[in-house]
Amino acid sequence: MKTAITPTRAENFSEWYQNLITAADLAENAPVRGCMTVKPYGWAIWELMRDEMDRRIKAVGVQNANFPLLIPIEFFNREAEHVAGFAKEAAVVTHYRLKQIDGVLQPDPESKLTDPYIIRPTSETIIGEAMSRWVQSYRDLPMKLNQWVNVMRWEMRPRMFLRTSEFNWQEGHNVFATHDEANKDARRMHKLYGDYMREVLAIPAIMGEKTPEERFAGADHTYTAEQIMQDGKALQAGTSHDLGQHFSKSFGIQYLGTDGALHHAWTTSWGTSTRMMGGLFMTHSDDDGLVLPPAVAPYQVVIIPIVRGDDTEGLNAYAEKLADDLRAHGIRVLADTSDMRAPDKMWKWIKRGVPLRVEIGAREMDAGALTVTRRDLGRASKQTIAVADFVASAREMLAAMQRDMYDAVLRRNAEMIHNVGSLAELSAALSAGKTGFFRLKYDLTLAPEFDAIMEQYKISRRCLDDADPEYVFVAKSY
Amino acid sequence: MKTAITPTRAENFSEWYQNLITAADLAENAPVRGCMTVKPYGWAIWELMRDEMDRRIKAVGVQNANFPLLIPIEFFNREAEHVAGFAKEAAVVTHYRLKQIDGVLQPDPESKLTDPYIIRPTSETIIGEAMSRWVQSYRDLPMKLNQWVNVMRWEMRPRMFLRTSEFNWQEGHNVFATHDEANKDARRMHKLYGDYMREVLAIPAIMGEKTPEERFAGADHTYTAEQIMQDGKALQAGTSHDLGQHFSKSFGIQYLGTDGALHHAWTTSWGTSTRMMGGLFMTHSDDDGLVLPPAVAPYQVVIIPIVRGDDTEGLNAYAEKLADDLRAHGIRVLADTSDMRAPDKMWKWIKRGVPLRVEIGAREMDAGALTVTRRDLGRASKQTIAVADFVASAREMLAAMQRDMYDAVLRRNAEMIHNVGSLAELSAALSAGKTGFFRLKYDLTLAPEFDAIMEQYKISRRCLDDADPEYVFVAKSY
Repeated sequence: MKTAITPTRAENFSEWYQNLITAADLAENAPVRGCMTVKPYGWAIWELMRDEMDRRIKAVGVQNANFPLLIPIEFFNREAEHVAGFAKEAAVVTHYRLKQIDGVLQPDPESKLTDPYIIRPTSETIIGEAMSRWVQSYRDLPMKLNQWVNVMRWEMRPRMFLRTSEFNWQEGHNVFATHDEANKDARRMHKLYGDYMREVLAIPAIMGEKTPEERFAGADHTYTAEQIMQDGKALQAGTSHDLGQHFSKSFGIQYLGTDGALHHAWTTSWGTSTRMMGGLFMTHSDDDGLVLPPAVAPYQVVIIPIVRGDDTEGLNAYAEKLADDLRAHGIRVLADTSDMRAPDKMWKWIKRGVPLRVEIGAREMDAGALTVTRRDLGRASKQTIAVADFVASAREMLAAMQRDMYDAVLRRNAEMIHNVGSLAELSAALSAGKTGFFRLKYDLTLAPEFDAIMEQYKISRRCLDDADPEYVFVAKSY
Repeated sequence: MKTAITPTRAENFSEWYQNLITAADLAENAPVRGCMTVKPYGWAIWELMRDEMDRRIKAVGVQNANFPLLIPIEFFNREAEHVAGFAKEAAVVTHYRLKQIDGVLQPDPESKLTDPYIIRPTSETIIGEAMSRWVQSYRDLPMKLNQWVNVMRWEMRPRMFLRTSEFNWQEGHNVFATHDEANKDARRMHKLYGDYMREVLAIPAIMGEKTPEERFAGADHTYTAEQIMQDGKALQAGTSHDLGQHFSKSFGIQYLGTDGALHHAWTTSWGTSTRMMGGLFMTHSDDDGLVLPPAVAPYQVVIIPIVRGDDTEGLNAYAEKLADDLRAHGIRVLADTSDMRAPDKMWKWIKRGVPLRVEIGAREMDAGALTVTRRDLGRASKQTIAVADFVASAREMLAAMQRDMYDAVLRRNAEMIHNVGSLAELSAALSAGKTGFFRLKYDLTLAPEFDAIMEQYKISRRCLDDADPEYVFVAKSY
């Protein structure tokens, strides 16, 4: 059977993904090393994702603010693990003026900065410096701040949405009086991310703590949401860090306690990014293109008039009227009355993953009926129903699709997780080409033989099993 | 009379502004040359401003997208006027890695880029390059794109919100088949900005075209919204450019016309930024602090329980209940039940410009009444009314305040605009210390003597008078 995307997922998952991005008109590679341009359809999905995440973050008492793009190298250098983790991918600003020299526009040597800046790869340092001034007494705590910004980590092997030199994200930075509160906060934001992925993205993520080897540079504990892609690889889609006193000590974030003494505070940071879009696309899409959960679909319903002969105007008006009726029910809908041929419209919106596709021909119009197809189920779900019934039930159809998409991934994930009792068993499974997450005793992964397996099969520790932290999940990853 | 902000506007407008920013907890200088950190209260105002602007931009058929932060110098160099306008303030990225050398963390010489990048000062060039691929035929036109991003123009004389090296903005970039359409679009977006300033910010801006001397670097026509600050200086708060074919020719944005031939397209760009916040603050605020139009006030109503003795709990609960009742009417409200003293709370929210301040003491609670004061009118507006009446009329009170604030500025502006018939008259007025906008024949400003006046009094041409483009407004400016 012909598919809209070639190759198919089974034929070449990686190429399928690239072609999916193009076919759904989501993004393209930019003429800047490792960067992408997010096109309007892709950005509309991000805006829906962002707005809902923002709502949830504010609901737990976090306030948004905005910190500078540039970070003095000296700040960056204050926390040893942090600088070791990010120095190798830092974009550096060294001049502040361009000049024509010998006919070539180049950095003006006279504008060279004594102290260069880096473009933020993350903002623990510059926010830590601000908090050292903003936090004075226990009355100022907890302090909970977030920002939605672009960050940059120079990327040698870029991959759209999953790994790009510049990406957009939210980074939250909270300060507490005690370690207990900070650790609870890191776990709370971790849970918030898991709930969001489940309820909004229809993705059941594996939720757990990173092993010491895989922690964020400068954290005592890192909690992660690992999504399982259709090819069995892991995608780290959101992390929350208990930073202990690493940054409060490096930046002097101290508060006057009720005891009248100065204490170093305890901080957390937590982030999700446009990378989550890559997870969304790779989790749900199929060989005909994108499949979007209704919660983040720019159009939840698209109406396609099937024009035959000269009934264009009447059908288009009818489609627009139906669109208005659905909008009155709070549904995002497009009546596609453009002058493309109907089959081209149909494939356009299939590739773009619109949840419900409605087709109306002259006969349906006369009969007060329409044909509706669910994107995730395809042809099998195609049904003709009365227009009034559709308008009344469209919201429930969308809700059902959202639930079903989650359940489908949950079932698939269950088949993707394999228990292994020894490194030999792990090695044999990988060597036999088995894909997915492997669950084994964490202790086993501390043996030198595990390092060899990691290298040979390009796997890594994803996270400890929350249900039994003596076990760890390992997998290939994006 | 003691004021919350010292010095007062009359004593020292510039210092008053700096202290206003601090007193209202809006922002602070960042430890990065020319940059600021926007604090939560300031950012909450920006989010309201941004969301309403975004809604209006989308309503005229523009789609949001996201283009890279970095721009290859070669792109930037393609349009001669453009590069001349921005090269002198460009932050340049020259390395992509840091390394410890002799114990100092610095740009790794081995990571030096053959082709450096600049941080976008604006994105005509990189968007032009994308459009040269995205625009193929007349069917692709018009194409209307916008992005909400940070940009950077290295600033030697920074001033919070008004002029910072990094700032946040929206930049729209549209493409059309004909010059007529493009010019109409530039004017449409200009009008959209004017409507927005009037309806949302309660600011009547002077709307007109820039003279050739003051145009955007690479534009055929620049339309501007010039706001008049309380000290009579101008603030350019939003511009819309008819770019002619400058960028379509530099980047090869061509379309196949209905005539079967290739044509260069016509482009526009238009932007408003966090600078508009500076205009908002400088236009409406007074010697007691910020005064916010209800449309962009994070809290439109603040309720302060006036606790005397041990009635704290009952009063706080009563305040929270009232807050909920107001929220049910779609009002943004805070019941300030924190443990500050009531007078401190009162001054805190006066300084932060909350439109309606409600005070409730035990006696008011028992009588089912409250005291309400309008921020713009102060004590004179203080009235005690029944709680039920306030809940029913609060929205109308806010709407009235929004209108009155606009009218007050309109009246003040009328007194700030002076007609002058000659350069001698202009010179005399400036020399006498007269402030505001001076309106004179544009031709007069082409004489060499005008250059001398500009330099001596630091004035500049702001824009032509829309009502009679033979006249131009000149003023000092931010």
